[in-house]
Amino acid sequence: MNIAFIGLGNMGGKMVQNLLKTGATVYGFDLSQTAIAHFVEAGGIASDSPHDAAKNADIVITMLPAAKHVKEIYLAEDGVFTVLKQGSICIDSSTIDPQSIKDIAKIGAEKGIKVCDAPVSGGTIGAQAGTLTFMVGTDADLFEQVKSVLSSMGKNIVYCGEVGSGQIAKICNNLILGISMTAVAEGMALGAKLGIDPQILAGVINSSSGRCWSSEVCNPWPDVSANAPAGRGYSDGFATQLMLKDLGLAIEAAGQVKQPVLLAGLVQQQYQQLCMQGNAQLDFSSIIQQYLPQNSQ
Amino acid sequence: MNIAFIGLGNMGGKMVQNLLKTGATVYGFDLSQTAIAHFVEAGGIASDSPHDAAKNADIVITMLPAAKHVKEIYLAEDGVFTVLKQGSICIDSSTIDPQSIKDIAKIGAEKGIKVCDAPVSGGTIGAQAGTLTFMVGTDADLFEQVKSVLSSMGKNIVYCGEVGSGQIAKICNNLILGISMTAVAEGMALGAKLGIDPQILAGVINSSSGRCWSSEVCNPWPDVSANAPAGRGYSDGFATQLMLKDLGLAIEAAGQVKQPVLLAGLVQQQYQQLCMQGNAQLDFSSIIQQYLPQNSQ
Amino acid sequence: MNIAFIGLGNMGGKMVQNLLKTGATVYGFDLSQTAIAHFVEAGGIASDSPHDAAKNADIVITMLPAAKHVKEIYLAEDGVFTVLKQGSICIDSSTIDPQSIKDIAKIGAEKGIKVCDAPVSGGTIGAQAGTLTFMVGTDADLFEQVKSVLSSMGKNIVYCGEVGSGQIAKICNNLILGISMTAVAEGMALGAKLGIDPQILAGVINSSSGRCWSSEVCNPWPDVSANAPAGRGYSDGFATQLMLKDLGLAIEAAGQVKQPVLLAGLVQQQYQQLCMQGNAQLDFSSIIQQYLPQNSQ
Amino acid sequence: MNIAFIGLGNMGGKMVQNLLKTGATVYGFDLSQTAIAHFVEAGGIASDSPHDAAKNADIVITMLPAAKHVKEIYLAEDGVFTVLKQGSICIDSSTIDPQSIKDIAKIGAEKGIKVCDAPVSGGTIGAQAGTLTFMVGTDADLFEQVKSVLSSMGKNIVYCGEVGSGQIAKICNNLILGISMTAVAEGMALGAKLGIDPQILAGVINSSSGRCWSSEVCNPWPDVSANAPAGRGYSDGFATQLMLKDLGLAIEAAGQVKQPVLLAGLVQQQYQQLCMQGNAQLDFSSIIQQYLPQNSQ
Repeated sequence: MNIAFIGLGNMGGKMVQNLLKTGATVYGFDLSQTAIAHFVEAGGIASDSPHDAAKNADIVITMLPAAKHVKEIYLAEDGVFTVLKQGSICIDSSTIDPQSIKDIAKIGAEKGIKVCDAPVSGGTIGAQAGTLTFMVGTDADLFEQVKSVLSSMGKNIVYCGEVGSGQIAKICNNLILGISMTAVAEGMALGAKLGIDPQILAGVINSSSGRCWSSEVCNPWPDVSANAPAGRGYSDGFATQLMLKDLGLAIEAAGQVKQPVLLAGLVQQQYQQLCMQGNAQLDFSSIIQQYLPQNSQ
Repeated sequence: MNIAFIGLGNMGGKMVQNLLKTGATVYGFDLSQTAIAHFVEAGGIASDSPHDAAKNADIVITMLPAAKHVKEIYLAEDGVFTVLKQGSICIDSSTIDPQSIKDIAKIGAEKGIKVCDAPVSGGTIGAQAGTLTFMVGTDADLFEQVKSVLSSMGKNIVYCGEVGSGQIAKICNNLILGISMTAVAEGMALGAKLGIDPQILAGVINSSSGRCWSSEVCNPWPDVSANAPAGRGYSDGFATQLMLKDLGLAIEAAGQVKQPVLLAGLVQQQYQQLCMQGNAQLDFSSIIQQYLPQNSQ
Repeated sequence: MNIAFIGLGNMGGKMVQNLLKTGATVYGFDLSQTAIAHFVEAGGIASDSPHDAAKNADIVITMLPAAKHVKEIYLAEDGVFTVLKQGSICIDSSTIDPQSIKDIAKIGAEKGIKVCDAPVSGGTIGAQAGTLTFMVGTDADLFEQVKSVLSSMGKNIVYCGEVGSGQIAKICNNLILGISMTAVAEGMALGAKLGIDPQILAGVINSSSGRCWSSEVCNPWPDVSANAPAGRGYSDGFATQLMLKDLGLAIEAAGQVKQPVLLAGLVQQQYQQLCMQGNAQLDFSSIIQQYLPQNSQ
Repeated sequence: MNIAFIGLGNMGGKMVQNLLKTGATVYGFDLSQTAIAHFVEAGGIASDSPHDAAKNADIVITMLPAAKHVKEIYLAEDGVFTVLKQGSICIDSSTIDPQSIKDIAKIGAEKGIKVCDAPVSGGTIGAQAGTLTFMVGTDADLFEQVKSVLSSMGKNIVYCGEVGSGQIAKICNNLILGISMTAVAEGMALGAKLGIDPQILAGVINSSSGRCWSSEVCNPWPDVSANAPAGRGYSDGFATQLMLKDLGLAIEAAGQVKQPVLLAGLVQQQYQQLCMQGNAQLDFSSIIQQYLPQNSQ
């Protein structure tokens, strides 16, 4: 079984390493020659174009920055869909809006090509370790096939429903994540200002109804959660600008179905403000800086 | 050891039942004759006033609606402080702003009376079952004495630091709770509108970074969390008007120390809006109604 | 001088009537045959396509729903740009994001075609009466030419700066408008609930620092502003869904330049909520319904 | 006719100067000896206490920082109400919550003393120039008497309805003001970032539907409004901490009548954030700093 892997960047480049370890034949493409070089070094076969990568493939995996790239790769005049044979499977692991992947899947279906979405969580660390979570949107039959491929790159392969559902799950999760992180930042900063020990406060919250991933695993107050970005200057985490992007996708998708998302609308702008203040690359838990006086200095 | 228990309402009335089961001598007071009657039936001794209840007490426990009642009980001209002997202990389990209990404790200290705050979580169900969590603010020595008393009424007796810290911990926790519940409501309503199965969506969130108490234990979408209020028309939970009160305390405390709490400021008003729409008595997870079209009918 | 007018809907159809009254030769196109029929009845010349309308034109005016339509009309393979002669002028009066019209203008410039943006305010009433305000983005030379054409359809032709500036002015104005309307709704509802006479309250505000267009001309409380939509069930005004669209454009443009807009992010979602509750067609001053208890009935 | 004036600070001290110019006999009290000295120098008669000031007075005017001071002055054991004769008039020009002045007026009425509220707008400049606006809450008969007294200190004496209505009008006005200023800050910062000339943008807004006091008279972008604080480093205006206080009063009053005020809830916290960043003394139009990147430096 031949696989084409398109998009060998920060995430894709690490994911494909784990795929190659299974002994699979993988044709790869990326605009970056450095990315291609790393891929070839690990046993991959370089291709000159997405079209070229896909022409021998049974399965195509894409890992790209935004919906416009995904559409271009699949739907362009010389795109992947023009070369794939009937019955091929396309797995898009990019994080994009649900409607775009539904549109692509519909066009694929007309050509006998099966398309599913499988966005990930776990970041570059999970990509490298092969411990990503994949949220998969597809029909139940295809899921089993897709699962076996993705298992080499991830630990949890979660079935979310029909195509687009993987994206829906991811953006809804990240909407909650972005808001609850800001809530924890607000609560921790308030508690500290009122005089309680932040460690004790986090202990109470984490054994009570305020507990969440952001309070337990990634607490924005330094040195509360072991190994969290807050303890290392908010470096090496989930970048604020990526949270900004994901909230943007959630708001865009909400707009498409005329669904109000009040807190997301506000909190996205708080992350934009944080980026404006020079923190785009920091972990998104650095949102706590908006609640601390040093921010103004 | 004699105990005075002042405030025998929804919470206090159930708590004191567990205290009486230990065989303690308890003098009780409440403005409601019905409350007094239940208390006496369970073995308590009725008093004519807080002053009367406290006059033989080594320990006073108060469970009252708001700071003004707590101040009145302790500080009035014929208040509890006028009758207690040196070395007595006062435990206030009301939920009030941290500054008020600090002020009361300072006045108590001048009279040789030790005051600590011990607000609870767990609601009327926890009060009845004796499984409350007490968040205790006091010095380390007093904590051990207080702990043994409170253990008859609660399961977790958590040390939070000096007096006032129990209140701080509670309001910071509930600030995070109120916001994260609204975030979950927003995410669940969005997902459902976009077409994903709410059960599946909750499953993904609860195994990912969006997970929180509100998504796991008290999910606002009906029948996602077992036994949650959402499954029974949002009845028998933590009432919206109580969440409104607690967010108000958090915002008031934040104002006293000049600390901004942006999301709390907004979300409190959303709960006010929910109350205006006739839902003050419903569980606060009914905030999801603001994200559903039937709200307008 | 020949003019092509593309987009003869609610706004364009009324604008072109005033243009025709000047005796100009106007070639028109719309997808709706009814729209074409009205146009021909008033003396316009029907065209089969945008291309057909533009082929004899010195000036092209477009009035279309969204950026994608504007791009399509000008840039498609058989679009307007393929048929216009050098030195032609294109005036886009649609409300779209600033970047899109800048992009179109750049492509036009390469072909020797001058493009300017001239979005309007004044609604369908202003379009019919010929009293629109045009906010024009173009170079100073072209402005004089454009001004003479637009004067037949509007009363105020305002120079805003280089191409795109008309759109910028419009979306920034409407961002302020949408928020200040919500602020007035909040203030009027609060005052009424506190017991002041709404007429008196509006009088104080309008002679003080709270005064704004929304409090003076279009007060959301019924019968405070003469002839305002609030006095006729919020009908025949600036529809909530159009305010939603314009706030969306402001937020999109803000995102493109990484500029935070906190209140706009929130208020857009409030208008989305208002639409969800069935009020998309009502005047946007109906946002006051979110602050009144009958909303929940 | 003798007048007692209690509270001779930044505002009261300047107001009383204009009152003294009419030749009135004024007994004054303030805790500050400097304030008293200025008052005496201008012809006032110093008193040792509010009680002492009021004992010969037909009219009492109070200008105090907060409700607790107003309550103390009128209702204390040796307060003003204990010494005033029946038929006396009390005018409170402090800015406080409406309920407090209603409560005081009710107690006054039982003693035959008439109480009205008359908060001001116009700041220290208006106080000095005698051009304040007074928003008066009282019955229609008393209004005429009050008006003649206040006319020496203000230009506009506005009747707002029964007692408390002056406060209601003021806090509702300032609620709209605080939000619309933030909206203008957001719109101006967005426009500038998108590349339009701020002067041109303000011109368009001020002749369109976005116009408001904050865009016309006190535009937060430097040098757009003549003589606005923005042009002198945001000095000598309406201090951010006073806007914070007034929004706090509006939110408190809203809470008392269970009225939601979403934007006020959020915007108050933005002003708190601005204070935290060291700008409490600056004009409240400095809120634009939250939308500019230098804020983070």
